[in-house]
Amino acid sequence: MKNDNLLILLTNDDGIHAPGLFALYQEIKKLGKVLIVAPDSERSAVGHAITLSQPLRVWPWPPANRAAHPIPPKSTNFTDTDDGVWGYAVSGTPADCVKIAYWALLQERKPDLLISGINHGSNTGLNVIYSGTVSAATEGTILNIPSFAISLTTYEEADFSFAAKFARKLATVILQNGLPVGTYLNVNVPAVPENQIRGIAITRQGQAVYREKFEQRKDPQNKTYYWLTGYKINLENDGPDTDDYAILNNMISITPVHYDLTNYQFLDKLKQWKLKLE
Amino acid sequence: MKNDNLLILLTNDDGIHAPGLFALYQEIKKLGKVLIVAPDSERSAVGHAITLSQPLRVWPWPPANRAAHPIPPKSTNFTDTDDGVWGYAVSGTPADCVKIAYWALLQERKPDLLISGINHGSNTGLNVIYSGTVSAATEGTILNIPSFAISLTTYEEADFSFAAKFARKLATVILQNGLPVGTYLNVNVPAVPENQIRGIAITRQGQAVYREKFEQRKDPQNKTYYWLTGYKINLENDGPDTDDYAILNNMISITPVHYDLTNYQFLDKLKQWKLKLE
Repeated sequence: MKNDNLLILLTNDDGIHAPGLFALYQEIKKLGKVLIVAPDSERSAVGHAITLSQPLRVWPWPPANRAAHPIPPKSTNFTDTDDGVWGYAVSGTPADCVKIAYWALLQERKPDLLISGINHGSNTGLNVIYSGTVSAATEGTILNIPSFAISLTTYEEADFSFAAKFARKLATVILQNGLPVGTYLNVNVPAVPENQIRGIAITRQGQAVYREKFEQRKDPQNKTYYWLTGYKINLENDGPDTDDYAILNNMISITPVHYDLTNYQFLDKLKQWKLKLE
Repeated sequence: MKNDNLLILLTNDDGIHAPGLFALYQEIKKLGKVLIVAPDSERSAVGHAITLSQPLRVWPWPPANRAAHPIPPKSTNFTDTDDGVWGYAVSGTPADCVKIAYWALLQERKPDLLISGINHGSNTGLNVIYSGTVSAATEGTILNIPSFAISLTTYEEADFSFAAKFARKLATVILQNGLPVGTYLNVNVPAVPENQIRGIAITRQGQAVYREKFEQRKDPQNKTYYWLTGYKINLENDGPDTDDYAILNNMISITPVHYDLTNYQFLDKLKQWKLKLE
């Protein structure tokens, strides 16, 4: 089943040490060669940030790989090491990781697939626009690499093994079918035992909004600071075809997404405003 | 022309000290009351980041306002001060600024309009997904505030006065017409003398991609670091209805955008993949 001609790039926003990434790696390495390029520490809710104002640092990972895998790499013919994982940690965001993997580390050798995750926590509804996990898949798609993001919908201690197996299955299907130009998949897996998962739903991005609050506190110097908290409201009114609804009903959610933000429906109406310079 | 019942929220990603924001303020205060809540320093290319892992700090701005404007504010009945500007600097991203303005500083009094800018540099094409300027308008739209982002398309020293006047005109039209739920405007103004601007184009988000490069350098300790550079390619093939094309032709570009990333066209095809759990 393993095809050494395949190169699959993995990244995430929880950082290169995250158990969700390692679980993903354990399954995906059954398909082909795997290169991990991920942030050196957690970068959650970074949105689609890229690092322009600071230089990026890159380290072989795990550090024992250093001698075998110099920076920059001498070749792009990556092979797994005996200790299991082959990769680089980057002092940047998930989007930075994909860019530097493609343009610098892989010297423009295009991976056959990019998978971002497995995120520890859901990326459904409005969360999608804040998600570093999804932004990495966006970046892969911009580079014309078939890409998907995958998240396990819990912030508690979690078992990533079922989600990882599903990622491998989905990877196989995408490698067969391809994805349309500019389109990628955002996958969320319910954090329930495998025998409680009721199926797979193809969904739209939910639009339920947050009720937010900034907790106001005093620091030890008696100065005020704020901390953001919040929860989604009106989830039940947002429709049974959404990602959030699927997860609530123990279904795996797969949403096809793209990065063309144009509202084409409103575009013609806006022309009728007949805006003038004078 | 000034209506003291109107409350207009201004923010940006260049930081509260930026001349583009001040130019915008000078024009918008002619329409109504203005509250500025902006990052305390530059936050460019932060995408739609929000700050979850750190507390946020808020300071009255300019600092001379401190006595008159405590934190949190005693009332949401904001009035301009004699020194011209009334606002808060926030130790966060543009999206943080909008959230904290609405949920904490304004105590959920909804502004009638949100304007993000005037950004020093273009936010066209793929840049839109990396843009902190645009993310603030996204955040306003999520809060159901009519919102637009506005950018001047140069990184050189620039005169923001024409773009600011145009922002005031557009603000007036939006206050009259409203915007559809979930939709906002991304405006780019060419950085040319006013008499060379040829009109207003209603556009779609361009899809021209970047040719990127990571410059590899050595630091004083002889360690490698990378710095991202790049430029757009294939601009000319991307179509005359794009934001980038409008700017190249000295037209003001207005793109209606939304934050529903679902690719509805591919959704039905994806259902035909008939993905199964087993």
